Amino acid sequence: MSISKKKMILDLDTGIDDALALAYALADPDCDLIGIIGSYGNVYVEQGVQNSLNLLTLLGAENVPVYLGAKHSSQTDSFKVLPVSAQIHGDNGVANIQLPKAQRTFEQKSGIDFLIEATHKYKDRLFFVPTGPLTNLAQAIKKDPEIIDLIGHVTLMGGALTVPGNVSPAAEANIHQDPEAANDVFQTHLPLTMVGLDVTTRTLLTRKETKCWRELNTQAGTVYADLVDYYIEAYKTTNPHLDGCALHDPLAVGVAIDPSLVNKIKLNLKVETKAPFEGRTIGDETRLNDSKVTTDVAVNVDKIRFLDKFMNRLTPLFAAH
Amino acid sequence: MSISKKKMILDLDTGIDDALALAYALADPDCDLIGIIGSYGNVYVEQGVQNSLNLLTLLGAENVPVYLGAKHSSQTDSFKVLPVSAQIHGDNGVANIQLPKAQRTFEQKSGIDFLIEATHKYKDRLFFVPTGPLTNLAQAIKKDPEIIDLIGHVTLMGGALTVPGNVSPAAEANIHQDPEAANDVFQTHLPLTMVGLDVTTRTLLTRKETKCWRELNTQAGTVYADLVDYYIEAYKTTNPHLDGCALHDPLAVGVAIDPSLVNKIKLNLKVETKAPFEGRTIGDETRLNDSKVTTDVAVNVDKIRFLDKFMNRLTPLFAAH
Repeated sequence: MSISKKKMILDLDTGIDDALALAYALADPDCDLIGIIGSYGNVYVEQGVQNSLNLLTLLGAENVPVYLGAKHSSQTDSFKVLPVSAQIHGDNGVANIQLPKAQRTFEQKSGIDFLIEATHKYKDRLFFVPTGPLTNLAQAIKKDPEIIDLIGHVTLMGGALTVPGNVSPAAEANIHQDPEAANDVFQTHLPLTMVGLDVTTRTLLTRKETKCWRELNTQAGTVYADLVDYYIEAYKTTNPHLDGCALHDPLAVGVAIDPSLVNKIKLNLKVETKAPFEGRTIGDETRLNDSKVTTDVAVNVDKIRFLDKFMNRLTPLFAAH
Repeated sequence: MSISKKKMILDLDTGIDDALALAYALADPDCDLIGIIGSYGNVYVEQGVQNSLNLLTLLGAENVPVYLGAKHSSQTDSFKVLPVSAQIHGDNGVANIQLPKAQRTFEQKSGIDFLIEATHKYKDRLFFVPTGPLTNLAQAIKKDPEIIDLIGHVTLMGGALTVPGNVSPAAEANIHQDPEAANDVFQTHLPLTMVGLDVTTRTLLTRKETKCWRELNTQAGTVYADLVDYYIEAYKTTNPHLDGCALHDPLAVGVAIDPSLVNKIKLNLKVETKAPFEGRTIGDETRLNDSKVTTDVAVNVDKIRFLDKFMNRLTPLFAAH
């Protein structure tokens, strides 16, 4: 593996678009996926970790370790999957498909410790991409604040700054799962890019693309076509104004590898934690005039170039498996 | 007057920052202020119109006509000044100072008709700058939709996209006065720039600047120093995290004349009209992927260059009166 590649850790609550993010990180020639941490969110953490293990097996990447992360938010002692999550991703997170089961299980080391150790090892070459709640990242920062200054970059899928949320007019689902953890992260000077609904609802996948994968006649092509067709069908109900399904999580991976895919604004963020605005990501008015701003918010995306990259990476990967 | 100057109409609910906007439009060499329309908001419309007339007299601009606009929002049949407005601007909108009274009154023609006729006359040279509710503009569009395609540009002070509001976490005061009117305006393809709290709370005036005006030893210098010192004092209570008072309305005038003062993003907007989000300006998710976007939202500002321009225009004007 080339030293110039970005060392990437994904933090997934592995539902369908997480599965696409995982495939993108495996397929991109500039990315070295060194591990996956599991999170609760679209599914229970145990199910998400199993989905990640199974997908890695499907895609011939059994060398990538998978770690267990938080089971629930920083403010609760349990977690229950929302009905809307099951509607969009299926009860098992992967469209109710029985994926071929991996022959291994998750690592013994905790996801939090893995993130901390990898950050110390790789420093500015370490790129962390959480596509679920920010609970694991907030815990890692709390346990070892040094990683704030060491880490290369965090590119998160979550939040909504310039568009309405998807679990309330104010809030996007990932941030809404643990507003306090997200706010803790945003209040640091971590180098961070928020890839939220502002841009992910502009990058859409349709049955035209899944047809390409299905026609590969491979196991991976068929599984991913089935996954995304299920997701597209769910989007017809949840987002009838969109002409396809949103590429939430893979866009965060794409932006982590190639930040030029999006237009960004620099803004210190906060997360509101009180009803009815809880989970809203918004500029922090008390830090608006600070000279130091380490957070970028993606507000537009070169959707044609991204979709092109996305297909050019995923299709050959699925063709080979 | 040069034909190359921008023909500007201000729509003011004349409180203190409106008074600064009025002075900016008079003082800028690239701007020909052809009229002022009054609105309710910081004050009752009659008081605002009287304030505009008095300020024009103070600044030697008795040739600029003043018109009466709407007395209340599109959804109500009356209007009451909010206590916070009186706190910030004074009961009379001008820091409870008795301005020298103008020797004339407002025009007989309605503000709505004036805006429509001026748009037909000047077309793309007509720049409209509303710094209060959008009630007058929405009424003009309803009465004559042709102005949407004729007008040069609308640069409004109002809204908050990337920062919290100032009358609620969701809403900025001007938009909150008449969310339906603002939404009607945003749903058209009017060429429009929103200059909201995103940028106006970054451009601050302090006692250092008002001291310069006071030391001019002119009537205008003293009046404007008194006005802004009152405003700065009120800001200490309402916005203790800001180090001065926000130049809301004059920034909109500055941007109308020189759009390069701000960084903008293109986004089709909507205004939420239901509690608890009523008055929130946010991207319209149903038009996010439209190819045509005619609305720009200012998200950052070259505050040093703006403050420099602001002082270089206003100080000589106050020195001469």
